[in-house]
Amino acid sequence: MNIKTVDWKRGRMRIVDQTRLPEELVYIECRAPEDVHDALRRLAVRGAPAIGIAAAMGVVLGARRSKAADAAGLMRDVRKAARYIGTARPTAVNLFWALRRMLETAERHRAGGPRALTRLLEREALAILEEDNAVCRGIGRHGAALLRDGDAVLTHCNAGGLATARYGTALAVVYAAHEGGKRIRVYTDETRPLLQGARLTAWELARAGIDTTLICDNMAAKVMGEGRITCVITGADRIAANGDTANKIGTYGLAHLARAHRVPFYIAAPLSTIDPATASGRGIPIEERDPDEVRTFAGRRIAPRRVRVYNPAFDVTPARLISGIITEVGVLRPPYRRSIAAALRRDRR
Amino acid sequence: MNIKTVDWKRGRMRIVDQTRLPEELVYIECRAPEDVHDALRRLAVRGAPAIGIAAAMGVVLGARRSKAADAAGLMRDVRKAARYIGTARPTAVNLFWALRRMLETAERHRAGGPRALTRLLEREALAILEEDNAVCRGIGRHGAALLRDGDAVLTHCNAGGLATARYGTALAVVYAAHEGGKRIRVYTDETRPLLQGARLTAWELARAGIDTTLICDNMAAKVMGEGRITCVITGADRIAANGDTANKIGTYGLAHLARAHRVPFYIAAPLSTIDPATASGRGIPIEERDPDEVRTFAGRRIAPRRVRVYNPAFDVTPARLISGIITEVGVLRPPYRRSIAAALRRDRR
Repeated sequence: MNIKTVDWKRGRMRIVDQTRLPEELVYIECRAPEDVHDALRRLAVRGAPAIGIAAAMGVVLGARRSKAADAAGLMRDVRKAARYIGTARPTAVNLFWALRRMLETAERHRAGGPRALTRLLEREALAILEEDNAVCRGIGRHGAALLRDGDAVLTHCNAGGLATARYGTALAVVYAAHEGGKRIRVYTDETRPLLQGARLTAWELARAGIDTTLICDNMAAKVMGEGRITCVITGADRIAANGDTANKIGTYGLAHLARAHRVPFYIAAPLSTIDPATASGRGIPIEERDPDEVRTFAGRRIAPRRVRVYNPAFDVTPARLISGIITEVGVLRPPYRRSIAAALRRDRR
Repeated sequence: MNIKTVDWKRGRMRIVDQTRLPEELVYIECRAPEDVHDALRRLAVRGAPAIGIAAAMGVVLGARRSKAADAAGLMRDVRKAARYIGTARPTAVNLFWALRRMLETAERHRAGGPRALTRLLEREALAILEEDNAVCRGIGRHGAALLRDGDAVLTHCNAGGLATARYGTALAVVYAAHEGGKRIRVYTDETRPLLQGARLTAWELARAGIDTTLICDNMAAKVMGEGRITCVITGADRIAANGDTANKIGTYGLAHLARAHRVPFYIAAPLSTIDPATASGRGIPIEERDPDEVRTFAGRRIAPRRVRVYNPAFDVTPARLISGIITEVGVLRPPYRRSIAAALRRDRR
């Protein structure tokens, strides 16, 4: 049912080329670190978990192509591949996390020969992928318990299978409820300026047989006012220790609108998205992006050339507007400082 | 300073071709009813007041081109022109209002010769234009008193000069405050799906020398949360007797967000927008438009071809979320049922 966004087949990485969606479903095979670097760079793969998995597989491809006769030579080639892949998306946290994990694995097993080491690296990359699937399935299972037959979920941006290896976070909840036999309808915001909701979420939901309706971002309030929505579920880019959540621009407004219409507002994200070192949303830096993302579309100008633009990529939703945070270990509830700390403590054991 | 969106020069109607904005400022000269019909049909002129004025001028063009030797013959040609222009935008209320007013003028003066009648029709069309300017200036004057030096206004869609003969409604307030020496900043939502905010509002504000920032619709909440906005002002398509207001989709959400951030939310509209026969917002029908407006962006497909779309063109903001209605006779305040009735009574005297 679900698309395998990132997959590993016979020594090659296979990914969905997201730049071609929704027009066509095209897979790309990557055989060398250069292919992975290119795919990351032109956003053929996106979404923090998917980026991490692709980076790990890129390191494996570097090891497989190495001609080194001993482990030391292989280590040199592996480090070189990791360094190179790290330049593709310099701000992606998951990318560096995955590369570090691969290098640590390599260091631990450098006593073995190059072929054994390559096999171990391949196993580690597949472990990262499997862990992602398990985490997403966990989020789906816990979230699905919140949904009833006939519910209608509003979502924003793409927190779906296309952002992870396969199941997604916010959409994992929908998929799990659907698999459990509940009829769930989804309204998806198109999500300006990059339109991930229209291009990716609408596409993957329709493909999974979910009843899906696309709206413009400014229609969410009306749809809630008409009583069409039973809950809002979005993903997260970073969650602070107090539950404040950074996510795609527009999420903060949806949270206010949900509150005004007495609609529950949930965040769905793995525990790894929680940053206990960030005390509150005030500590989360918000990236401002190129004004031309707003001034143009697909090469066509839609606004005056020199008009000033404000284009923040994310916003921060305060914890008080969040009804629950759906994670792989359960749904965390307010007060979040306590429930988040407890979940992280249990997870570390 | 302000562009003359619709104007009359030496027996011809001159309009700004809004389909060419923001890329270039092109004027079209209309010499015959056919030219006006075409301009209305392809949305070269839009906005209820501007449509009414253009229709009235189309009737004058019909009279001027008539070869009739007597008033009866001219009346036939004038009626024919009015009927034909009426087919261009069959749901536009102002169009029929203007055509009816022109035909009534013709009937009243049919005793005179054809040349005198043509002159009287020309005078009536110019009166409609002048009345629009006076009404918009009145809205501007009353609204400007609400703004202080340094204020920042958020607006939605285009309720500007491009929707009227020259000054606009919501933007008339900004222009009047600016002319009065107040520094006013404006944030304009791009206004999906048809992008009137990006294409038209950003263009006309920048041209008038107003400090303007373009945002996507889903950024309005963040901009308010950052304390950047001191009030929201939008236009209106129809106002019910109790103050409930239909306007471009997205207005309702902005009103909720303004309330949540304690930002005053104003509607700016002529008294003619108030429909005393409509008791409340529940009586206002909301047009649903072509799904392809949402599935495509500036001509390019951005969503799966067959995905279901919900595309309401308007929404209704309940009176309780509206801080004031800025009209040509003053700012109406809650309770609206009373203040609206009083304003209409005074206006009829």
